[in-house]
Amino acid sequence: MRNIKMLIQYDGSRYKGWQKQNQKGSNVSTIQDKIEKVLSKMTEEDIQIIGCGRTDTGVHAENYIANFKTVSIKSLEEILEYLNTYLPEDIVVKSLKNCNERFHARLNVKSKTYVYTIDNNEYADVFLRKYTYHIRKKLNLEEMINGSKYLIGTHDFQSFTSLKIKNGKSTIRTINYINIEENNNIIKIKVNGNGFLLNMVRIIVGTLLEVGLGNMCSSEVKHILEIKKRSEASEKAPAKGLCMESVVY
Amino acid sequence: MRNIKMLIQYDGSRYKGWQKQNQKGSNVSTIQDKIEKVLSKMTEEDIQIIGCGRTDTGVHAENYIANFKTVSIKSLEEILEYLNTYLPEDIVVKSLKNCNERFHARLNVKSKTYVYTIDNNEYADVFLRKYTYHIRKKLNLEEMINGSKYLIGTHDFQSFTSLKIKNGKSTIRTINYINIEENNNIIKIKVNGNGFLLNMVRIIVGTLLEVGLGNMCSSEVKHILEIKKRSEASEKAPAKGLCMESVVY
Repeated sequence: MRNIKMLIQYDGSRYKGWQKQNQKGSNVSTIQDKIEKVLSKMTEEDIQIIGCGRTDTGVHAENYIANFKTVSIKSLEEILEYLNTYLPEDIVVKSLKNCNERFHARLNVKSKTYVYTIDNNEYADVFLRKYTYHIRKKLNLEEMINGSKYLIGTHDFQSFTSLKIKNGKSTIRTINYINIEENNNIIKIKVNGNGFLLNMVRIIVGTLLEVGLGNMCSSEVKHILEIKKRSEASEKAPAKGLCMESVVY
Repeated sequence: MRNIKMLIQYDGSRYKGWQKQNQKGSNVSTIQDKIEKVLSKMTEEDIQIIGCGRTDTGVHAENYIANFKTVSIKSLEEILEYLNTYLPEDIVVKSLKNCNERFHARLNVKSKTYVYTIDNNEYADVFLRKYTYHIRKKLNLEEMINGSKYLIGTHDFQSFTSLKIKNGKSTIRTINYINIEENNNIIKIKVNGNGFLLNMVRIIVGTLLEVGLGNMCSSEVKHILEIKKRSEASEKAPAKGLCMESVVY
């Protein structure tokens, strides 16, 4: 069996996230579904794609990694061409690569980077409106950066996930860095970690935004982290501002 | 009467261009229409907006300038807030300024800059697809730059307009510069001139693209200019790649 690694870019606006939905007869549209259908049609096999992780409804990806196994003898160029001919215009496969048969796009992840983009212009930029969250009030970046520092390192992120905690499931993760940068009123919050819990990036961003808006002081982030209660953190920031930037294996 | 200058950004995808359509009972949606309606409702006057020029169906604007006269005594802040509350999310008024009562957004134009954006990636970038023209084959920028040089200066641009030439209407215009730059496979063609004929930028771009694709040598641009026949130039490039960048008065 060949094992093929895919580099995928998608505009998540129209989709219920990456992951295939298993309800029978479900009409739910996901990115995994769309790609599996095209690959299965091409190869006449029942192709199962393994993605590097779930992304929520409405979240985008710049460099999403996935892999699939096939007995097809078509060249990578042919497969790539077929995919991009039949995929909708909001999903693009940038490249394909033959990889070791043991490569697993989810289990082998070393770290992932997400970028959350905020439009801090007084009025929302029309060209960015689908990929940014518009906040009119000027954010205090310095305080947001101070707050973000408490999250760096290995912690129990129970306060920062919508996941219902089941026995045995660890909520400990490592955040390697959070970079917050502003350019022409466009603020990018880049979060790199070894793995992320459900809604974790969006809840972190939502909480840092409360700090940036002056509704919370930066040291409260430490308190929220330590108390391990979802209700202490803020609402999750809207999906449309979030983009999966890259994966390291 | 106050005379107010507006700085407007719009995503032209949904509109039949800037200019109001005069057919009675017409359901055609234009940017001018949308803004005039909101302003007329607010002021209870019949507001007429003067735009800096027409833009074609589907063309965008980053910094479009217009002006209108009103007897309203509302502050600029109030008017701006009202406009951005009631305008659709693909039209934003960035700012308003009181100006000399003789200021006329079209007649006083000294120069305008348009930017045409080409996505020269092998597969179209999903996030740019609505604002760029995707060309898969690698373009020869050097030849495009060579071709563009023949267009700089004051010329009769009859070959580069869809305008039906009527007696007395001059087709002489001055192009001050054409900059062609590439960054990560995104090519920007910036054209600055004292005025533009109908479809002029899109026909110039369409012609330079033929040069870039190797279907025409750069010196043919000179021939096309000199022969003054629309049929000698290329098809106009698609509207969605074009954006009105700025206006100088």
